[in-house]
Amino acid sequence: MKKLINAIESFVDEACEGVVAAHPDLVRFHREPRFLARAAAPKGRKVALVSGGGSGHEPLHGGFIGVGMLDAACPGEVFTSPVPDQMDAAARAVQNGGGVLFIVKNYTGDIMNFDLAAELLRGDGIDVRTVITADDVAVQDSTWTAGRRGVGVTVFVEKIAGAVAERGGSADEVEKIAKRTSEAGRSMGMALTSCTVPAKGSPTFELGETEIEIGIGIHGEPGRERTKLISADEIVERLAHPVIEDLGLKRGDSVIAMTNGMGSTPLIELYVAHRHLAKVLAGAGVTIARALVGNYITSLDMDGCSITLLRADDELLRLYDAPVHTPALRWGV
Amino acid sequence: MKKLINAIESFVDEACEGVVAAHPDLVRFHREPRFLARAAAPKGRKVALVSGGGSGHEPLHGGFIGVGMLDAACPGEVFTSPVPDQMDAAARAVQNGGGVLFIVKNYTGDIMNFDLAAELLRGDGIDVRTVITADDVAVQDSTWTAGRRGVGVTVFVEKIAGAVAERGGSADEVEKIAKRTSEAGRSMGMALTSCTVPAKGSPTFELGETEIEIGIGIHGEPGRERTKLISADEIVERLAHPVIEDLGLKRGDSVIAMTNGMGSTPLIELYVAHRHLAKVLAGAGVTIARALVGNYITSLDMDGCSITLLRADDELLRLYDAPVHTPALRWGV
Repeated sequence: MKKLINAIESFVDEACEGVVAAHPDLVRFHREPRFLARAAAPKGRKVALVSGGGSGHEPLHGGFIGVGMLDAACPGEVFTSPVPDQMDAAARAVQNGGGVLFIVKNYTGDIMNFDLAAELLRGDGIDVRTVITADDVAVQDSTWTAGRRGVGVTVFVEKIAGAVAERGGSADEVEKIAKRTSEAGRSMGMALTSCTVPAKGSPTFELGETEIEIGIGIHGEPGRERTKLISADEIVERLAHPVIEDLGLKRGDSVIAMTNGMGSTPLIELYVAHRHLAKVLAGAGVTIARALVGNYITSLDMDGCSITLLRADDELLRLYDAPVHTPALRWGV
Repeated sequence: MKKLINAIESFVDEACEGVVAAHPDLVRFHREPRFLARAAAPKGRKVALVSGGGSGHEPLHGGFIGVGMLDAACPGEVFTSPVPDQMDAAARAVQNGGGVLFIVKNYTGDIMNFDLAAELLRGDGIDVRTVITADDVAVQDSTWTAGRRGVGVTVFVEKIAGAVAERGGSADEVEKIAKRTSEAGRSMGMALTSCTVPAKGSPTFELGETEIEIGIGIHGEPGRERTKLISADEIVERLAHPVIEDLGLKRGDSVIAMTNGMGSTPLIELYVAHRHLAKVLAGAGVTIARALVGNYITSLDMDGCSITLLRADDELLRLYDAPVHTPALRWGV
C-alpha cells in the first residue's frame, strides 16, 4: 500500500488539520469528539446544516463547509460511520436557535447514529430535521444499506439547502427544499480499480486487468455487473441510461449534471466521459443547465467515475447559483 | 491499461470537447489547428495570454481559460509539445492589438515551438512576449530540458499576469509581472507510482511496491533519488526543504503555497501532506498567506504530489486575489 500517510490511527485527524491549514478562514477543527465547523459563525438565526459520514469521500463533507453550504461535518474513520457524540457536539456548536438539518447518506450505520444524535438533541429542545439521500440507481439494497445508497446528489442537497438556509429560510423551508432536491437526483458509478482502505492495506475487491465493475458503491460495494473493459463512451451509456430512465427525464427537461471522479481518475479522462454524457443527454433532448466535472464524492484511491443528474427547474437553478464559499466549491464570492 | 478512453488518436480532442461541454460559457474549442480559447472575447484592448504544452497535465492549461487568466491554450498530444501552427492560430484568434504574452514551461520542444510561432506573429507586426517558467528545483537539466523544468509556478504566473492583463495592463506591465512571478516560485514533486501514457499502454517507469521517486518530473522524468516508501511527513520534508532553501525564504516571509496532486492522488492524502507543509513552514517562520490543495498540474494517472511555494508580497497577493472565472479556478465572480 503506497499512500501519503503517516499512521492509520491519525490519518483522518491529520487530514482534518490539513483542511484547516489550507482554509483557516473557512473551517475549524474540533478534535474530541471530531467535527469540522465554519470558522466564523453565521450572523443571525440560521438553520444549521450538519452532515457527515465515513471518511474517504473527500471533499465530501468537510470540503463543503462554509458560506452557502454546511455549518459542520462529522468525519468518521475511513468508510466508518461517525458516532452520535460527534453529530450531537457539532449540532450544539453550530446551532443558534433556528433548528438543525441533518443531511445523511443512506447507509445503515449513518442513519442509526444520526438518529441517536437527533434524539439527544431533541431531548434538549433543539429542533432537528433529517434528510436522507438515496440516489444510487445501481442496486436496491446493498452491503451496508436498506434501500438505495446515498451518493452524488448529497452534494446538490448540501448546496441547494445551504442556499435557502443562508438567506434565512425557516427549518420547514430548508427541510422541504432538501427533500425536494434529494428526490430530484439520481446517480450511478463504476470502478476501473478497487480502493485500498489504509487499515486493511490491500484492495477491497479484486478486478482483473481487463475487468471493470458497473454500479459500484462508494465503499467498493458490489454493483450491477462485472464486465470486460469497454470504451469511455460505452461506460457512460451504461451509467447514464439507467439514471435518465429512473429519473423519467423527457425531451425539454433540463438537469444539473455531475461527472464525478472516484478519487484517482485523471481530469482529462473525466472530461472525455463528460463529453459523451453531454451527447447522450442531447440525444434524449435534455439540456445541461449546469455542470460539475471533477472529484466531489470519492472512494479513496478508486479509479472510476459516477454520474449524477439533478432534474432542474428555475428555483433549483437559482439556489444552485447562489454564492458559495467552501474549500471545494466556490462562486459568487 | 485501464482508462476512461475511446481511442488514443481522439483522446485529447475529446477531452477538449468535454471541457467545452462542461463550460460552454467559458471556453470554445478550435479543432484544426487545435486550441481552446475564451468563449467570449474580452472587451477592449487587452494583452492576450496564451499558454500550452503537452496534454496530460489537466487542468493546466485549458482549465485556466477565462476571465482573469488565460485567453487561449494550445494542447499538444499527451506529453508532446504543441506545434507552432497551434500557437500562431490561437494568438491571432485572441489578440486584439494589445500584444500577446506566451507562458511557456521550460521544455525544449515547447520553447522551440512557441519561439517559432512568435517569429511568425512578429512577422505580421504582432507584439509577442514570452515568459518561461523553470521552477523545479529537483534537477538542473533533465530528459527534455536544458535548465530547470517548468512546473507548478506556471499556475501562479497565469493567475497573476492574468489579473494585470484583465485590468488593462500594458504588454510591458504584463510581461514584467509574469517574469517577477516566475522568478518568485519554486517547486518539487514526487511519485508513488508511474503514469501510463495511452499511446504506450504501460507504465513510463517502474517503481517497486515499496519504492518512491523524489524529484520526479511531470512526464515521469527521473528525479533526485529513488528511495523506499517513507511517511507523508518525511516526503513533505524532502520536498519542502529544497524549495525553501532555493527560494531563500527567511523568518517573516510569506508565501502562496500549493500542495498539488499528480493526477491520481486522493484529496484526503493531499490534506495530510499539506498539514505537514504548514508545520514545516511555521517552523521556518514563514506564513502561508494563501493555499491551494488539489490537482492543478498533473501527470496523467501518476500518484504523488508536488509542492510549489511562491514568495508573496502585497502586490502579488492583491493580484492573486483578483477575480477569476475559469473551469478550474474561480473566485470573486
